Amino acid sequence: MRFAHETLPQRVCFASGEAASTLRAEVERLGARRVMVIAAAAEAELAQQVTADLPVALRWSEVVMHVPVEVAERARAAAAVHEVDCLVSVGGGSTTGLAKAIALTADVPIVAVPTTYAGSEATSVWGLTERARKTTGVDARVLPRSVVYDATLTVSLPVPMSVASGLNALAHCVDAMWGPRVDPIDRALAGEGIHALATGLPAVMADPAGLPGRERTLYGTYLSAVAFSSAGSGLHHKICHVLGGRYDLPHAQTHAVVLPYVLAFNAPCAPEADRRIAAAFGARSAIEGLQRLRHDVDAPKALRDYGLEESDVDDAVQAVLDVVPAGNPRPVTAGSLQHLLRSAWRGTDPSTMTDGKEDRR
Amino acid sequence: MRFAHETLPQRVCFASGEAASTLRAEVERLGARRVMVIAAAAEAELAQQVTADLPVALRWSEVVMHVPVEVAERARAAAAVHEVDCLVSVGGGSTTGLAKAIALTADVPIVAVPTTYAGSEATSVWGLTERARKTTGVDARVLPRSVVYDATLTVSLPVPMSVASGLNALAHCVDAMWGPRVDPIDRALAGEGIHALATGLPAVMADPAGLPGRERTLYGTYLSAVAFSSAGSGLHHKICHVLGGRYDLPHAQTHAVVLPYVLAFNAPCAPEADRRIAAAFGARSAIEGLQRLRHDVDAPKALRDYGLEESDVDDAVQAVLDVVPAGNPRPVTAGSLQHLLRSAWRGTDPSTMTDGKEDRR
Repeated sequence: MRFAHETLPQRVCFASGEAASTLRAEVERLGARRVMVIAAAAEAELAQQVTADLPVALRWSEVVMHVPVEVAERARAAAAVHEVDCLVSVGGGSTTGLAKAIALTADVPIVAVPTTYAGSEATSVWGLTERARKTTGVDARVLPRSVVYDATLTVSLPVPMSVASGLNALAHCVDAMWGPRVDPIDRALAGEGIHALATGLPAVMADPAGLPGRERTLYGTYLSAVAFSSAGSGLHHKICHVLGGRYDLPHAQTHAVVLPYVLAFNAPCAPEADRRIAAAFGARSAIEGLQRLRHDVDAPKALRDYGLEESDVDDAVQAVLDVVPAGNPRPVTAGSLQHLLRSAWRGTDPSTMTDGKEDRR
Repeated sequence: MRFAHETLPQRVCFASGEAASTLRAEVERLGARRVMVIAAAAEAELAQQVTADLPVALRWSEVVMHVPVEVAERARAAAAVHEVDCLVSVGGGSTTGLAKAIALTADVPIVAVPTTYAGSEATSVWGLTERARKTTGVDARVLPRSVVYDATLTVSLPVPMSVASGLNALAHCVDAMWGPRVDPIDRALAGEGIHALATGLPAVMADPAGLPGRERTLYGTYLSAVAFSSAGSGLHHKICHVLGGRYDLPHAQTHAVVLPYVLAFNAPCAPEADRRIAAAFGARSAIEGLQRLRHDVDAPKALRDYGLEESDVDDAVQAVLDVVPAGNPRPVTAGSLQHLLRSAWRGTDPSTMTDGKEDRR
């Protein structure tokens, strides 16, 4: 047992139906008097309701995916002009991301009110895009001081998007189990996250407007982000990053398809991860638990359904080989990776990853 | 699901056999140049080894149980005179406690090197004793910025003391499950702590000089303190506080004896806690898991072996009734409490707590 674990300071409030009053209390706790509310135009009405009791100095609605630098600069300038002393973000990952971009230079606290299962609110990772190139970094100043989770704000998220987004959170938990900086604390939090998502997502399917499934999914999302940002990207995220970046595949669906193949591949060489994931699912093995959940929520099945060409596989194999994490529990060869990606492209049974025959091709 | 959880910022390093180099790195990370080393005389040699590479401005060895105010004042004055910019504590709860008393007024960071399973290093709780009266409080400044766990420093702790101290940590985990501010995050961390202690303590028994058992016990201790300080004192700690304060019973042994009776009493009305504790022990029920561990480590069995008189029980019942936590999962009556304490005094089978007959006496 040899590790260093950094626990980041944050208050999280779960308060279904009470975002407005909880948010007001959190902003008061920070002593803020000039709040900048950040919410995309599509969420303006929702944000209006949730922030009605705040001392708002500025409302900002220019929110763009991947946080382009020029958008961040405009928002930073406005924050300075209005002398804001607190940023309140209401929205998904792009909205939280813009708040982080401002906090990075303005050094004012963020209170985040997430409306999706992106998880950015629980990390100190920021991202900015300049001329189609994304830069990311880690800075303590961008970690929201407080997060208000109100499940009623997520009930309007359509079921397929909820499932894809929730499986993306699940991928954070699973990949954290063998991330380059993983420690037992990350594994415990990731296990708790898997359990929450594995029970929450089927409940969202069964009753999209009901709160228990939404609450459990938000809770699992929060834990997935805490565990993943501490453990770092494992093989799964490296593969999905290549697929998303090179072939423009949809983010959440790509994660949902690839995850069982990476899990089936790594599990035989990662017994502690396998045990913990299986226990979290209440299944005999990690892959059995994941496949049961994927069946129950009708998860995306094959990369060929999302725009990947069969002829891309060999190119992808080469690109992934360059970024395989050094500490991956199972050695990754061109042969095994080709088998993995080809299987994910076809959507065939992931259990053929497990036997190891392909490693020797 | 409705809760607010405050995660406290701390770095923890597990580095068996490498306390000196790890401690040096942690002190450098804080930019400290004038370190005050706090260690009791009994641990002077060990502290000397561990702190050999630090820029030490002052060594302090006056460490007294429960941190008397006059001792704290002397240490604070010395810290001011020597313009220390970092406190390094090497020792058990009293040593960490003195560092906290200094940090409370001097506002300098603490790096803690624990040598017992007290857990104080992972909380923001301080305590001071003035004229036999203990005052406690919570302050962010007293939370050690960094903790260095080196299991080799604990191998000299005798087995009976290790067991009693480890069961005290286990009591933090169990009582956290129904503490007044408990939330799912506390429960997840407490469950991980129970699992670590339930596997660590038997390993310490089997091989007191071996590191794996010591490491797991330290890890469980750390989690127990994090979970317990977030969840707050439950029924178990209220009972033990009364017994310790009124009849001067030994701290760790009292906890070890009382825990199964409180668990057996509460479990039928706390199914989520029962499920989590059972899973952590790998047992069918929480009480079965606890009793198996208690058997394996030859745990203390009856309060009458530790100085409580049978005639004290009625007095204790009245005193405990005044401090029963409002949110205890099972209503506590004079009758049920008398049955609980009488059973703990005799050391009889705790499963008779479970049936509820005594509630109606």
